Amino acid sequence: MKTPRQTEILYGVHPVTEALKADRRQIFEIHADTGKTGRRLDPLIRLAQHRRISVQPLSHQGLSALAGTDMHQGVAARVSLFPACDLSEIILTRSSISDTSLYVLIDSVSDPHNLGALIRTALCVGVNGVIIPSDRSAGPTPTVSKTSAGALEHIRLARVTNLVYAIKDLKNTNVWTFGLDAAGSESIYECDFTGNMALVIGGEETGIRPLVKKSCDFLCRIPQMGPVSSLNASVAGAVAMYEAFRRRQENRKL
Amino acid sequence: MKTPRQTEILYGVHPVTEALKADRRQIFEIHADTGKTGRRLDPLIRLAQHRRISVQPLSHQGLSALAGTDMHQGVAARVSLFPACDLSEIILTRSSISDTSLYVLIDSVSDPHNLGALIRTALCVGVNGVIIPSDRSAGPTPTVSKTSAGALEHIRLARVTNLVYAIKDLKNTNVWTFGLDAAGSESIYECDFTGNMALVIGGEETGIRPLVKKSCDFLCRIPQMGPVSSLNASVAGAVAMYEAFRRRQENRKL
Repeated sequence: MKTPRQTEILYGVHPVTEALKADRRQIFEIHADTGKTGRRLDPLIRLAQHRRISVQPLSHQGLSALAGTDMHQGVAARVSLFPACDLSEIILTRSSISDTSLYVLIDSVSDPHNLGALIRTALCVGVNGVIIPSDRSAGPTPTVSKTSAGALEHIRLARVTNLVYAIKDLKNTNVWTFGLDAAGSESIYECDFTGNMALVIGGEETGIRPLVKKSCDFLCRIPQMGPVSSLNASVAGAVAMYEAFRRRQENRKL
Repeated sequence: MKTPRQTEILYGVHPVTEALKADRRQIFEIHADTGKTGRRLDPLIRLAQHRRISVQPLSHQGLSALAGTDMHQGVAARVSLFPACDLSEIILTRSSISDTSLYVLIDSVSDPHNLGALIRTALCVGVNGVIIPSDRSAGPTPTVSKTSAGALEHIRLARVTNLVYAIKDLKNTNVWTFGLDAAGSESIYECDFTGNMALVIGGEETGIRPLVKKSCDFLCRIPQMGPVSSLNASVAGAVAMYEAFRRRQENRKL
């Protein structure tokens, strides 16, 4: 008898579609609410048929029971676990947007919505990879695949036991680390975001943990005004990632 | 007998604290879970005492029943309704960050989390005001105050019956309107974001509605790469708002 494989249930149109496109997970079977197989599910079902993956009809309630949530949009799939990378794989990967590398480290973000939003933005700016701690962080779960609109299925992501060691490894390959911190001495617009760099983003309430912060080469802040003094973690991360993206694009034009 | 006033229940530490600080709503009474009156609620209670507003003890369950949610963080307040502005007030308001005005129009964003996040960012970049449609949009509810981390309590916000007319009124005061659109011909980094301008942000699924889009002077896109082709609505809005903020700050230095 074969040892049963570890599987999980992906749900939602984007996660299942992007898992099919990315072709990184094994997809054992797809369940769809055929009553709802309107325009929205058609492309997904065609993609599955093309890949010879069976699509079984299942009621809305059946899907809710399978996915453990009502947010399945009429589709769920039994898949192999998320294919995380080793840190070394991510470090060795060349950037797709420029000659210089851009890594994103996310410290202590426990809200799956924030982690998903950060991963979605990271994919849109073409980062080399995302690094998160194994503990004290949301993980690459089906919920995060959903909140990332399926971006999780494509991103290179490593889980490390210690972010401080990961920063050391990055430094050994000539990567500068910039921690986002409201008390940072320089604004993100003053920092040199053009070279090999890692952006360190902290959790909503507590920010970057002290030892991780101490390991950063620079602490930089997002300028802001007005009476409420903090941006949402996923928004702050996005503004900084896009500033690095803009500077790289500008540099490429010169 | 007096006509009873219309009131609503604000909940959460940030919304109630910022309502106290902003001093725009009448606050009739505050209820707090005195068992939880630890460090987190102390500043809020001192602020309330200073303003001679009564703080009544109420259990966690009592607060949940009052607020209609468990997300109250131990505090809720009965307050007057959100003080929305007229469009004309917003148009007449001078910018606090530069000589030029920045308005934000949010079309068809129905998710209170996205609306709250956009309002929070708008306050951080010092917009003159935010304009939303009365229909087909989340409103300035207590939920949005919570998801905006209390930023709603400070922002100038107008609800209009027709965004197209609002754009016309803005144009009459020499404001250029830029619609964020994935198919826009120019990137946000190529557009001139230094003058009097309004940024139009559309909903997550549908984007800006056709007639509103047609009224915009320019359609601009946020450059992005990779297999998943769209940013979250609140992230896209934030990246564009911060680009306008950056350009204004740069201009001020020259």
